[in-house]
Amino acid sequence: MTRIEHDLLGDREVPAGAYYGVHTLRAIENFPITGVPISAHPDLVSGLAAVKQAAAQANANLGLIGLREAGAITRACEEIRSGALHDHFVVDVIQGGAGTSTNMNANEVVANRALELLGHAKGDYEFLHPLEQVNLGQSTNDVYPTAVKIGLQTALVHLRQAMGELATAFAGKAAEFVDVLKVGRTQLQDAVPMTLGQEFGTYALMLDEDAERLAESAALISEINLGGTAIGTGLNAHPEYAWRVRAHLAAITGLSLITASDLIEATQDVGAFVQLSGVLKRTAVKLSKVCNDLRLLSSGPRAGLGEITLPPVQAGSSIMPGKVNPVIPEVVNQIAFRVIGNDLTVTMAAEGGQLQLNAFEPIIAHSLFESIELLTRGCRTLAQRCVVGIDANTEHLQQMVAASIGVVTALNPYIGYTEATTIAADALASGRTVVSLVLERELLTQDQLDKILDPQNLTRSVDPIDGYATVADRADSKHRVPGPI
Amino acid sequence: MTRIEHDLLGDREVPAGAYYGVHTLRAIENFPITGVPISAHPDLVSGLAAVKQAAAQANANLGLIGLREAGAITRACEEIRSGALHDHFVVDVIQGGAGTSTNMNANEVVANRALELLGHAKGDYEFLHPLEQVNLGQSTNDVYPTAVKIGLQTALVHLRQAMGELATAFAGKAAEFVDVLKVGRTQLQDAVPMTLGQEFGTYALMLDEDAERLAESAALISEINLGGTAIGTGLNAHPEYAWRVRAHLAAITGLSLITASDLIEATQDVGAFVQLSGVLKRTAVKLSKVCNDLRLLSSGPRAGLGEITLPPVQAGSSIMPGKVNPVIPEVVNQIAFRVIGNDLTVTMAAEGGQLQLNAFEPIIAHSLFESIELLTRGCRTLAQRCVVGIDANTEHLQQMVAASIGVVTALNPYIGYTEATTIAADALASGRTVVSLVLERELLTQDQLDKILDPQNLTRSVDPIDGYATVADRADSKHRVPGPI
Amino acid sequence: MTRIEHDLLGDREVPAGAYYGVHTLRAIENFPITGVPISAHPDLVSGLAAVKQAAAQANANLGLIGLREAGAITRACEEIRSGALHDHFVVDVIQGGAGTSTNMNANEVVANRALELLGHAKGDYEFLHPLEQVNLGQSTNDVYPTAVKIGLQTALVHLRQAMGELATAFAGKAAEFVDVLKVGRTQLQDAVPMTLGQEFGTYALMLDEDAERLAESAALISEINLGGTAIGTGLNAHPEYAWRVRAHLAAITGLSLITASDLIEATQDVGAFVQLSGVLKRTAVKLSKVCNDLRLLSSGPRAGLGEITLPPVQAGSSIMPGKVNPVIPEVVNQIAFRVIGNDLTVTMAAEGGQLQLNAFEPIIAHSLFESIELLTRGCRTLAQRCVVGIDANTEHLQQMVAASIGVVTALNPYIGYTEATTIAADALASGRTVVSLVLERELLTQDQLDKILDPQNLTRSVDPIDGYATVADRADSKHRVPGPI
Amino acid sequence: MTRIEHDLLGDREVPAGAYYGVHTLRAIENFPITGVPISAHPDLVSGLAAVKQAAAQANANLGLIGLREAGAITRACEEIRSGALHDHFVVDVIQGGAGTSTNMNANEVVANRALELLGHAKGDYEFLHPLEQVNLGQSTNDVYPTAVKIGLQTALVHLRQAMGELATAFAGKAAEFVDVLKVGRTQLQDAVPMTLGQEFGTYALMLDEDAERLAESAALISEINLGGTAIGTGLNAHPEYAWRVRAHLAAITGLSLITASDLIEATQDVGAFVQLSGVLKRTAVKLSKVCNDLRLLSSGPRAGLGEITLPPVQAGSSIMPGKVNPVIPEVVNQIAFRVIGNDLTVTMAAEGGQLQLNAFEPIIAHSLFESIELLTRGCRTLAQRCVVGIDANTEHLQQMVAASIGVVTALNPYIGYTEATTIAADALASGRTVVSLVLERELLTQDQLDKILDPQNLTRSVDPIDGYATVADRADSKHRVPGPI
Repeated sequence: MTRIEHDLLGDREVPAGAYYGVHTLRAIENFPITGVPISAHPDLVSGLAAVKQAAAQANANLGLIGLREAGAITRACEEIRSGALHDHFVVDVIQGGAGTSTNMNANEVVANRALELLGHAKGDYEFLHPLEQVNLGQSTNDVYPTAVKIGLQTALVHLRQAMGELATAFAGKAAEFVDVLKVGRTQLQDAVPMTLGQEFGTYALMLDEDAERLAESAALISEINLGGTAIGTGLNAHPEYAWRVRAHLAAITGLSLITASDLIEATQDVGAFVQLSGVLKRTAVKLSKVCNDLRLLSSGPRAGLGEITLPPVQAGSSIMPGKVNPVIPEVVNQIAFRVIGNDLTVTMAAEGGQLQLNAFEPIIAHSLFESIELLTRGCRTLAQRCVVGIDANTEHLQQMVAASIGVVTALNPYIGYTEATTIAADALASGRTVVSLVLERELLTQDQLDKILDPQNLTRSVDPIDGYATVADRADSKHRVPGPI
Repeated sequence: MTRIEHDLLGDREVPAGAYYGVHTLRAIENFPITGVPISAHPDLVSGLAAVKQAAAQANANLGLIGLREAGAITRACEEIRSGALHDHFVVDVIQGGAGTSTNMNANEVVANRALELLGHAKGDYEFLHPLEQVNLGQSTNDVYPTAVKIGLQTALVHLRQAMGELATAFAGKAAEFVDVLKVGRTQLQDAVPMTLGQEFGTYALMLDEDAERLAESAALISEINLGGTAIGTGLNAHPEYAWRVRAHLAAITGLSLITASDLIEATQDVGAFVQLSGVLKRTAVKLSKVCNDLRLLSSGPRAGLGEITLPPVQAGSSIMPGKVNPVIPEVVNQIAFRVIGNDLTVTMAAEGGQLQLNAFEPIIAHSLFESIELLTRGCRTLAQRCVVGIDANTEHLQQMVAASIGVVTALNPYIGYTEATTIAADALASGRTVVSLVLERELLTQDQLDKILDPQNLTRSVDPIDGYATVADRADSKHRVPGPI
Repeated sequence: MTRIEHDLLGDREVPAGAYYGVHTLRAIENFPITGVPISAHPDLVSGLAAVKQAAAQANANLGLIGLREAGAITRACEEIRSGALHDHFVVDVIQGGAGTSTNMNANEVVANRALELLGHAKGDYEFLHPLEQVNLGQSTNDVYPTAVKIGLQTALVHLRQAMGELATAFAGKAAEFVDVLKVGRTQLQDAVPMTLGQEFGTYALMLDEDAERLAESAALISEINLGGTAIGTGLNAHPEYAWRVRAHLAAITGLSLITASDLIEATQDVGAFVQLSGVLKRTAVKLSKVCNDLRLLSSGPRAGLGEITLPPVQAGSSIMPGKVNPVIPEVVNQIAFRVIGNDLTVTMAAEGGQLQLNAFEPIIAHSLFESIELLTRGCRTLAQRCVVGIDANTEHLQQMVAASIGVVTALNPYIGYTEATTIAADALASGRTVVSLVLERELLTQDQLDKILDPQNLTRSVDPIDGYATVADRADSKHRVPGPI
Repeated sequence: MTRIEHDLLGDREVPAGAYYGVHTLRAIENFPITGVPISAHPDLVSGLAAVKQAAAQANANLGLIGLREAGAITRACEEIRSGALHDHFVVDVIQGGAGTSTNMNANEVVANRALELLGHAKGDYEFLHPLEQVNLGQSTNDVYPTAVKIGLQTALVHLRQAMGELATAFAGKAAEFVDVLKVGRTQLQDAVPMTLGQEFGTYALMLDEDAERLAESAALISEINLGGTAIGTGLNAHPEYAWRVRAHLAAITGLSLITASDLIEATQDVGAFVQLSGVLKRTAVKLSKVCNDLRLLSSGPRAGLGEITLPPVQAGSSIMPGKVNPVIPEVVNQIAFRVIGNDLTVTMAAEGGQLQLNAFEPIIAHSLFESIELLTRGCRTLAQRCVVGIDANTEHLQQMVAASIGVVTALNPYIGYTEATTIAADALASGRTVVSLVLERELLTQDQLDKILDPQNLTRSVDPIDGYATVADRADSKHRVPGPI
């Protein structure tokens, strides 16, 4: 069963049950690229419906479409926004035409569903036309980027929630490990002591900071170009249309939206997408670094750093019995690599924009949605399947601190960098501890050492024995000596 | 209906109808990342089956598994290679664990299908065990990269075919436009004449060259590490296993395969993947450049270069009536941006490899398969929906050549660069043609100009009037003069 | 003439005249990489001096170094900040060690210059020691990133100034071309009319927006980790040191500075650098797009778009007489590609950070400084050598608008999209104008067309004849008809 | 002192002592971008001289320039190729114009030096003209890419030599550590044993393979387009010119050179550069991975893996006494990140090529030369300052092998994967060794274990006790049991 529809290339049969029409059909044939339909990004589909609904309402206010028609369009859009009809958004996520096929798909699905609600058959466009009414006062070039931005706002909210979950998981571990002393490392070499709680607290904080940066990027995409129509000159849009449609769209979505002051600039510029992609890349880089750390700290079980144990979630090897691998951090690393690759895709597409429009917005949109969705799932997976189950190997950590040469740094203020260097070199060569060497040379007393090397003092900025060598202390000597401690 | 299976984490219920088992189930739960299963890359699934089949045959030769079991495994693998059971390859394309979950999924599907063929129930692993028999003498770390390479070989054959189709389409146009003279351009500025046939011939040749480069890259991935097991030392593999399994695998796939001379190196090195990705990027860059050209040459219809017309394939705008856009080249540009992004993902993943294994092979494999598949579809789409239907706007091209100042270059050998520069400047300032100015100044005769500016002479390397100013010609003058023409 | 200095590897001869010492010497030998010394980034050198000066003053306040020594250090640093001694900052811009060599170089130059000011010879470190006094309370790991941030602030001010110059040049052209009507283009196809002034105004606005984004990024790097010492625990720093040194540094540089709330996080996190790099990439992408447009619009002189003429700045060809190329936009494109490449370098380096420190900060710093410097010079060059001299080819632009089919879009509200599509198709096929076809079919009157197609009306959002077809207008017809115009 | 020269923009004063002329002067003024002149790449300058020399000789053969002039040009070029006059190659490495300024610079320096040799003053171009004679039959568009390719060939030879040096250093260590047993690791988790010699041997082999790939890439750039002139049609080149100039150029450089079969394609296509860049990226990725490994294996000295010790080359910290960092691997990592960034720059530039020419070849050339030069220095530095001085911490390595659970894998063939998994789990939980558990359960005898766990057997593919459980062995049991060992 089919119906006949018409476009500038001629007549075509459309499946009778399809809510989409001839323009969508052409796009399906033209773009057999990924096999992934735009409905893979439900936030984008909802964004499209929100824009169509707002436009219908604005046009109704201006008397450009009838109230009955506007009502039907509104109801159709609300259904879509609540999740219905998504499987009729079928054009490929990678498509030519700057989003025209996506916009056409939306126009047709909304029109046909509205026609049904008005008691007409699908395809009876003389009662309600996808282009002349659903798309009235609009162009792909203002509808599409606006819908993408609306959709991204929702997607970013979910990402920030997932990042919050992960940050909370890390913060929980930070609290749990607050007293677990360990050797801090710089350049993979033993440095000075810190607590495992401090280490995990850092991860929580990093995520919180990135979430703030994402919120700022989300604010940048609250500027829309709706009303600009084809190239931003607003040709064919009623003079009052731009502010009216923005007001409706803000009400529908609950978002603060701004109409760009220069719609020509706003129509061709994809800078806000590039920046958002850059911040997503920042988040990916950070997550990858954190996962690298988790894999490193849990290396072992016997010949690695062995500081923490990740919860086992599956057998690690088809040949090595009992082997357990850090598969959850590994999958997050790979998500990060994908997001970083997507950022390059966005960059190339943005650079390729020409004159009054960027023709490559579909791949920009697809890349951004994919990156956000992957990061969201990655954060959740990492939190739930890994971080919450991490254990500290406290005993081993303790032993390493005791053996560490880096604690000699804490003696600098009392014995000087040069003397301390000698001690460190001797410790390394002899295998002895710093403490035993300092005592042997009577540079400090056991009591002084106890205070200086007290974990409480080592892991924050204090002067444990009020003994930093001040100038007065050294007045009688031009040689460096310990202070009067 | 479920059955109980067991792994190192304990017991789990597996759906009774599932060919996969507990290890696959864990992976499904652990990696809810993209929602895209590895069956999205059928060439990879077939590659896995080929490896399992070859291993079973080698193990049977060595007496390590029974002939009946080997026969059942072989039959199961052949079914998979002919397209069956792919929907049981369900683990996510992005997964932690260096491919272990993919290998486990393959082991389990093969084992359970073989069990059925042997008259047992799924899960009756005491008769045939996924790890102890199907995976015998193997490790994910040699199976997985080998299967990926086998799969990529097939995928690359398809890509080269598609590139051949596209090259043929361009070559067809080159023949069609062999006599269509046009202005060549460098740096977007009018340069010297050429034919439109030469322009399209270039595109055909570029694709042929890239296909050759891809063939060379395919050769690089014919080196496999099967027999290296966990880290390449071959631990647990029978001394004769490596060459036997390679021979079987070559026979099964029809490919020339080489066992790497150093399996430890081969197990951790993903250089061949990085290089293949780089060559795919080269192809993407080339395709993108060609599509940029097509879009540029077809710009207009009235205020652009307007040299060629692309076949219309869909309405170009929801607001601008009659507008037709170059949507097919545009979608290929976007494919190219994705492939370039994927190359970065592969690069990051490769750089992140550590010690005896690269844990990030799954994202490398996914990126490579996706890039090849997208390029394949992009080439086909470009050939069929665009290139074959391109028309030349012959009249306009002719007018532009006639008006062109760049033809003055052809006069260099006769009147010198300095004089020619003056002519060019005057032509630009006055709007007059080069020919009229040269005649006015009596630098050359009409007859000489006719010969020099004959299209046949302009578009290839000849001396049209045997008149290049040789030294002898200029013996009597230290000033540059035309030769004795 | 040499002097002897000592480090943990033993004694070394240092050139007697060198302000740097043994640590710098080792670095020179260890890193013969680019041949480019860190003095290539004078803002970085000044940043280092500012930090050393602030530290000396804070340490003097705390009584940890003598007032005379602090005074000498301060004077040495002021000399460096005013441009002196930069040629003694000789370590390579690409170096191992997380910036240690750069910090050591600074410590030694400051110490030796201060020693001179105190009346001592270079190398008499018993009077003032590079590590024990100049570096007191500091670690490379807090000094280096802080100095980089201070330096970047200055560099970014210069970049924003250069962007402002370029924006002003574009704005000047926007004013000059305010009445020049032209065909707007989407996807390189003729779209609807606009003015050349609008086109150039867009470029000005884009730059202003990017400058704002850069200002925000600059704010993000006003957070410093000074006082964190080795890993952010503040070990060896006096409890009052962090706020004191920040106050001094703010006073010295005139910048608002914030001490990070968690110094451990701040010491290992390079997210702010990644984000800054991403915003620089955004600016590069934008500049590249603008230059692509300039090259496209000036293509010709005869067989191109020919809308504008760029000022000639050099002969364009060694073989084609009179050829002039858009070399200034071309060089800016290449700068953009470099900046985008640098962003990837920064990304890789950031991802590679491990545990408590990112060892790769030197390449991050070098990449950021280089990107900013290149963009600064690119903007200035583009403004001065290209944009200010651009001319509009007004006559040609006018002709193209007159011939354009895209104006039919303006008739949509009156004759409908479907009818307009027919008109457009007929115009394309017949070579006739839209106006003549509309008149022939009596769809609109000449007077109506004059109003609708008045340039004033075409290039902004108005209802030129108060005639949009409202619902009431169409009440008596279910067919789409023009309103009561 | 100046002389007057003339170009299409008018007259200009050139410094009297300058070998370059007015075209170079314009370029200096137009491109104040990096401050780095093309002489920074001496191989490029030599390549230019080689091309100019070959062209003069070909033109002399064809009687198009006098023998005396050709001789002078030849001598000038030979001087340049032997290192003279490089400081007169002053145009910026980043420049607009597709290399025109570089070609002009070469034409002018060669002409003026040849004029001197002929007894004339610099600037007396009536005797020998930079464009009319030195550039005769040439265009930037064939000269420049050819010179770049010639220069890259030399640069690549140096890189392969440096890689050879580094491979030799690693091979030396492989031999030294041939008997040092250690724990191999996959996914940073303890896997099965191998030798440290095997580990280092892998690094040597990787480099050798990459050097082969680079040799293949070098072969791809032996195809040149000399003779194609402006756009590849060969306009103005004598029909015999192309093969003659190629023959001379091959003789001068000692390289096998091929003239491209289609010069139009060869003139616009930069695919070979993209591929070379991709292979350089491959090498960078590999080097970075190796350096990551070296830093990981040498982590410690006490709380890290501590398997090897890198030779100390400088003090590692300005605050932590005695700390030594892996600064040489770190600087090589950073080189790798730069090379990977450069690859992106090359990619962007290649993608941006339009129609008959890629205008962005200068940044492609600069990026490639820089990458090769950096990799060359990186390999040398790594070999000389790090690898040759690496020591194995043999005792610690031994202890780790003894404690390792992964050896249980070697028991698979005798006790089965399932049983082995239990042993591994018990070992991990109890802290006991695999051997003690196996003996306790009487699964194998001490003697059998000795043979299976003999290092000679563990690290290569053997059947140590002729005891793999064959099917025959298991004929009487459907349960997995150890073979008849």
